[in-house]
Amino acid sequence: MLRIHRLLPLLLSAIVIALAPVRVHGAAVHGGPVPITVADLEAAQRGWCDALLAISKTHRDGGDAKALAADIIDAAYNYAAAPVLFKPTLTHGEQTFRVTREGALAYFVGGNPAYPEDTGFALKPWAAARYENAATYIEGNLGVTMGHVIFTDTSGKETKVEKTWIFRRGDDGKLRIVLHKSTIPYSPAKK
Amino acid sequence: MLRIHRLLPLLLSAIVIALAPVRVHGAAVHGGPVPITVADLEAAQRGWCDALLAISKTHRDGGDAKALAADIIDAAYNYAAAPVLFKPTLTHGEQTFRVTREGALAYFVGGNPAYPEDTGFALKPWAAARYENAATYIEGNLGVTMGHVIFTDTSGKETKVEKTWIFRRGDDGKLRIVLHKSTIPYSPAKK
Amino acid sequence: MLRIHRLLPLLLSAIVIALAPVRVHGAAVHGGPVPITVADLEAAQRGWCDALLAISKTHRDGGDAKALAADIIDAAYNYAAAPVLFKPTLTHGEQTFRVTREGALAYFVGGNPAYPEDTGFALKPWAAARYENAATYIEGNLGVTMGHVIFTDTSGKETKVEKTWIFRRGDDGKLRIVLHKSTIPYSPAKK
Amino acid sequence: MLRIHRLLPLLLSAIVIALAPVRVHGAAVHGGPVPITVADLEAAQRGWCDALLAISKTHRDGGDAKALAADIIDAAYNYAAAPVLFKPTLTHGEQTFRVTREGALAYFVGGNPAYPEDTGFALKPWAAARYENAATYIEGNLGVTMGHVIFTDTSGKETKVEKTWIFRRGDDGKLRIVLHKSTIPYSPAKK
Repeated sequence: MLRIHRLLPLLLSAIVIALAPVRVHGAAVHGGPVPITVADLEAAQRGWCDALLAISKTHRDGGDAKALAADIIDAAYNYAAAPVLFKPTLTHGEQTFRVTREGALAYFVGGNPAYPEDTGFALKPWAAARYENAATYIEGNLGVTMGHVIFTDTSGKETKVEKTWIFRRGDDGKLRIVLHKSTIPYSPAKK
Repeated sequence: MLRIHRLLPLLLSAIVIALAPVRVHGAAVHGGPVPITVADLEAAQRGWCDALLAISKTHRDGGDAKALAADIIDAAYNYAAAPVLFKPTLTHGEQTFRVTREGALAYFVGGNPAYPEDTGFALKPWAAARYENAATYIEGNLGVTMGHVIFTDTSGKETKVEKTWIFRRGDDGKLRIVLHKSTIPYSPAKK
Repeated sequence: MLRIHRLLPLLLSAIVIALAPVRVHGAAVHGGPVPITVADLEAAQRGWCDALLAISKTHRDGGDAKALAADIIDAAYNYAAAPVLFKPTLTHGEQTFRVTREGALAYFVGGNPAYPEDTGFALKPWAAARYENAATYIEGNLGVTMGHVIFTDTSGKETKVEKTWIFRRGDDGKLRIVLHKSTIPYSPAKK
Repeated sequence: MLRIHRLLPLLLSAIVIALAPVRVHGAAVHGGPVPITVADLEAAQRGWCDALLAISKTHRDGGDAKALAADIIDAAYNYAAAPVLFKPTLTHGEQTFRVTREGALAYFVGGNPAYPEDTGFALKPWAAARYENAATYIEGNLGVTMGHVIFTDTSGKETKVEKTWIFRRGDDGKLRIVLHKSTIPYSPAKK
């Protein structure tokens, strides 16, 4: 049951990029934050996918999916420092935007009466998840991705969403999400 | 006909934020880029709304809406420097993301055989447009908004979309769009 | 004796600028680091002057000046994250640049056999210290000052040095020194 | 006479770092400014040394050293955008800091009655110049160097100064100097 939860540090490490402030080059020492690379962004995206799958599997195995989700939100999102610009896939109306940690947790695992329509996106039987970037943009402490994420459930059914993330590198070298917007692709037939 | 096009400098000024690198404070002179403020972001958002309305009105008046749209894209989007992470409201499939200037122009005014489904979003009879921010985030040269934009057409019908922008302040002090993601709100009934 | 040391948190607070990531403006919440201002730089400069005076007075009062200096270096300089570009006023030759914490501490309080010429700049009988900026520059997380610092000893004698600082705002909102270059003014007569 | 002046574009290219906003990696396009590297800083330092030598040689050859110096200042310093924090080696008193372009030009080539002590540092018979960095720091658009520059005149005599630069990368990809502090090393004997 708790095996997955014990693996949390390992799982989180996927979204942690080492800070390496001291670089030696010739005779001089070099300082300053390490710039974000596309590989850093991809590692953070892979980490997000893996974290979602871990919550889902923990739930199927009868583990404490809510505790795991809370840990993951604290590690991967920037709520401790600022409101996060989070628009989950399935939210709408007055509760569209989840700028607080509570609203994010409710979306992922449900069970919060304050968010009655949330059934727990991460509790669905996800078996696989992958990202496909259309474009990225990096400047200063921020790295941006735009593209698709494709979820596959345990029956093999795929769900494709459009997803944009802004990751921020903190002084500890870790990337955290400051914006996350996920949407169902536009379908002309449903207009 | 061309009256609106002549007003372009005025219209564009709405999305231009003055660069003021020299500030005097006590006896010392002060340099460096002026930080982005929430007011800067709101001015840029208002400018985008006004520009859309200008294209629409120019089209109704028989003016050169395509030329105006091209000028606006060049002034308001960052295509000259980098691919823009642009997901317009009504795109889908292979042409979902418009990372090139050509793809953006096709979306706004249509008429490009390479983008056969584009009918020209800015040519619709828009009479009004306003934004409502849920949250913003500012760091370094980048300012981010997340919220809604509400379009009203000449018949009074409203269309509400979820919209995220990342604006970048250039060395010339102007804000330009490096990311623009617009989506139709999720509706549980359409699932 | 230890009274001054007990006041350390107070003294250090002079060089601490509060981080205020959540600002409310209209209906939206706003996040992101607070930009550095000239007032922030001046507070950090005032804090450095006060810290130097505190070390000097602690030494005169028979207190643990070295422990105080170590605490101040840890709070005010960026050595924990990266080499600091520190050129103190009176260093020369092979030991001109003090890129390590040890070299900085030796300069301020002396007594380190590895730095035989250091007699402890902060142990001199300083009674007052003030800065005069000629110019400042602020961009992103960094703020730069260039100007003079004037030290007055207990006999009333003044020493004027040219001083440049680069301060960095960390994720905790505090400014820390990443560069500090101090020099005796050029005198044509001494050529 | 003017041969060197005609080579200016070539000389300046040494301090110009290409902006390459579009990078392809896998299937996605990538945008955003290219981070500053230590190699970029070193190229800019080499460029500054070469530019000084070019002014000196132009002067010896009877060319227009002032025009060349003006072009170099415009290309290599940030005066067009903000006051530059410039403390040249041999300035003192009221004219210590040269925050304006005029003050910088006067220092390099002299001949300005408003700066009566300036004899033209770049007009001295410099035959060689090299830099030795003790440490560097890079963050965002700014790169900082601290170390020595060693000048050799045509008689073979060396002059060693301590020099700190802050370079800024502009939207055009070029590095320009926002701070330059140069000082004669401290000598205990001259105290």
